[in-house]
Amino acid sequence: MAMKNVMKATLAQGKQTDILFADDLKDLSSHLGGYGRLVMWVFDTNTAKLFKQLPPSHVVLESGEISKNFASLERILSSALDEGLARDGRIIGFGGGVVCDMAAFASSIYMRGCRLTLVPTTLLSMVDAAVGGKTAIDFHGVKNIVGSFYPASEVLICIDTLRTLSDKEFLNGLAEVIKHALLSQDEELYKFLLVKKNEILSRDAKTLAQLVELSLAVKQWYIEQDPTETMGIRQMLNLGHTFGHALESSSHFGQFSHGAAVAWGTCRALEAGVTMQVTDKAYASGATKLFKSYGYQIDHRIGRGDWIEFRDHLLKDKKKVDGKVLFVLLEGQGKAVLKSIEMPLVQHLVIAKPLF
Amino acid sequence: MAMKNVMKATLAQGKQTDILFADDLKDLSSHLGGYGRLVMWVFDTNTAKLFKQLPPSHVVLESGEISKNFASLERILSSALDEGLARDGRIIGFGGGVVCDMAAFASSIYMRGCRLTLVPTTLLSMVDAAVGGKTAIDFHGVKNIVGSFYPASEVLICIDTLRTLSDKEFLNGLAEVIKHALLSQDEELYKFLLVKKNEILSRDAKTLAQLVELSLAVKQWYIEQDPTETMGIRQMLNLGHTFGHALESSSHFGQFSHGAAVAWGTCRALEAGVTMQVTDKAYASGATKLFKSYGYQIDHRIGRGDWIEFRDHLLKDKKKVDGKVLFVLLEGQGKAVLKSIEMPLVQHLVIAKPLF
Repeated sequence: MAMKNVMKATLAQGKQTDILFADDLKDLSSHLGGYGRLVMWVFDTNTAKLFKQLPPSHVVLESGEISKNFASLERILSSALDEGLARDGRIIGFGGGVVCDMAAFASSIYMRGCRLTLVPTTLLSMVDAAVGGKTAIDFHGVKNIVGSFYPASEVLICIDTLRTLSDKEFLNGLAEVIKHALLSQDEELYKFLLVKKNEILSRDAKTLAQLVELSLAVKQWYIEQDPTETMGIRQMLNLGHTFGHALESSSHFGQFSHGAAVAWGTCRALEAGVTMQVTDKAYASGATKLFKSYGYQIDHRIGRGDWIEFRDHLLKDKKKVDGKVLFVLLEGQGKAVLKSIEMPLVQHLVIAKPLF
Repeated sequence: MAMKNVMKATLAQGKQTDILFADDLKDLSSHLGGYGRLVMWVFDTNTAKLFKQLPPSHVVLESGEISKNFASLERILSSALDEGLARDGRIIGFGGGVVCDMAAFASSIYMRGCRLTLVPTTLLSMVDAAVGGKTAIDFHGVKNIVGSFYPASEVLICIDTLRTLSDKEFLNGLAEVIKHALLSQDEELYKFLLVKKNEILSRDAKTLAQLVELSLAVKQWYIEQDPTETMGIRQMLNLGHTFGHALESSSHFGQFSHGAAVAWGTCRALEAGVTMQVTDKAYASGATKLFKSYGYQIDHRIGRGDWIEFRDHLLKDKKKVDGKVLFVLLEGQGKAVLKSIEMPLVQHLVIAKPLF
């Protein structure tokens, strides 16, 4: 079967991203083979293993967040230059969020922008990193603090690659799917998550394809209205991320995966909303239960001795206006608002016993 | 006198750049003082000397092309982070082309884009680097090979700063002005350069203000139609740059200033056009004379032993389609076309005796 084109998203600078689904790796390879020689591939040590023989022009990054830095960026740019890639050349990022982010950031600044195809191979990168044009590296211990807006011209999704993910990595992506379910303008994804839990966790291919499509549709709704996050709409996708990033940063990107931190952070935002009388209590309780039912450890507490470090990471968040950090809170299904939260309440929310 | 707003240019992503003229440094300082504390300044070792006391948040780069690299970029980003600059903060680049490029590139990727004011202090940066949104660093010995499109929200021009430039630095900028004169849709700037030569070379303030305005108007005509250089219009501003960059690179950014190289390169492009029967001979001869009258050494020859290095630099140019380097040639006043030139002709043009 040929590749199936399921979505077109119009993004920053009016650029369009085609999202295509492939049945299997063979489909995918034959599509990518069509580009000929003016391409350079970016893998990580995990995805490089999927190929018996790597394409001639490639860079293999160490897998994991540790590669999201200037050194990797320079490696990709340097290889592109050595390979003689021109502005009409294409960088193909083949891997999870880190590979997608690195390939996209490099592509956005190589000769001020060359062509870009992303092949996300994890659930997290399929529903998040690969679509929407946000690229970034970590810098001085702060996550995603340096980057650009640069949508891929093409995102190729092959559900097959999800089969070999570890459970931890699978849950890493599923947290963003649940977050999308809460932000959706309708309840379709939320209900899908409630009803199809077993099929999702057993990774039934057809179910996962539907899940990814539904999740991407929610993300698309937000990003098309506000491609460069200047209108106060796209920011809502950061639900759970202000708390979550600080947790990830203060645990030094080790103990908590991004998704686990976002799940935890979303539950903190729900609690904050209830305390500040923004969020409906029943809705918050139901959403927290949904996260729990998929196995997230959302009861984690910040130790008193770690509070200062956690707070310092929180204060480095990009969503700042006049020096105040803003949090995304939910009034209810699909209704997000930006609010600042007083520091004593933040401290209470991450240290004291959880509300639900 | 308050600052004078002379132009508005609408650029990449629909962003607008206000170009304001200040009477003197005092005017400028009072305008910049209005931003309060959410700013970080970028100087170089030359422009830092213009201030008795530097503003609290600043980075001072070593002056010269040597600073246009990843290390300087990381220094600026690192300082911004240390100063707690948020997305609504502003980076102010105060200096020549290198400072403008570095401040703008850093601003474009700091938190995926913060605010940007440029204060170009050389003729070259006033008529070229500061306006148009192109940012870049050099990488692996290749000029401007990594960068972004990111227009400043504000460009502040203070003609006063041109008074202290060396003659070499002044001519460095004037070459781009003459290039703009050839690319202009009318002959106003060309005639201005012919008639006002003495006033220009003696740096009469009023004359220079007119010169900068006329030159910027030409640049604006090209960039507004094609902000991200994807329509084949903005590329025409690269007249003289393909030959010129290769000369700069193969002389290791030392012997030839950018402007001197562009003057030389433009004359090579005019000769190429005449040989290929694209350019009117009388027009090419007149334009070459204009460069000569301002003192450019356009008769420089590439030694036979240096040809291979020169050619290799040429082949790294960004204006490549299907592996062929394209050159901007002139059919006549304001009529530019992109053409590839056979390598033997390129070699002849830079090695053999000049046509004019």
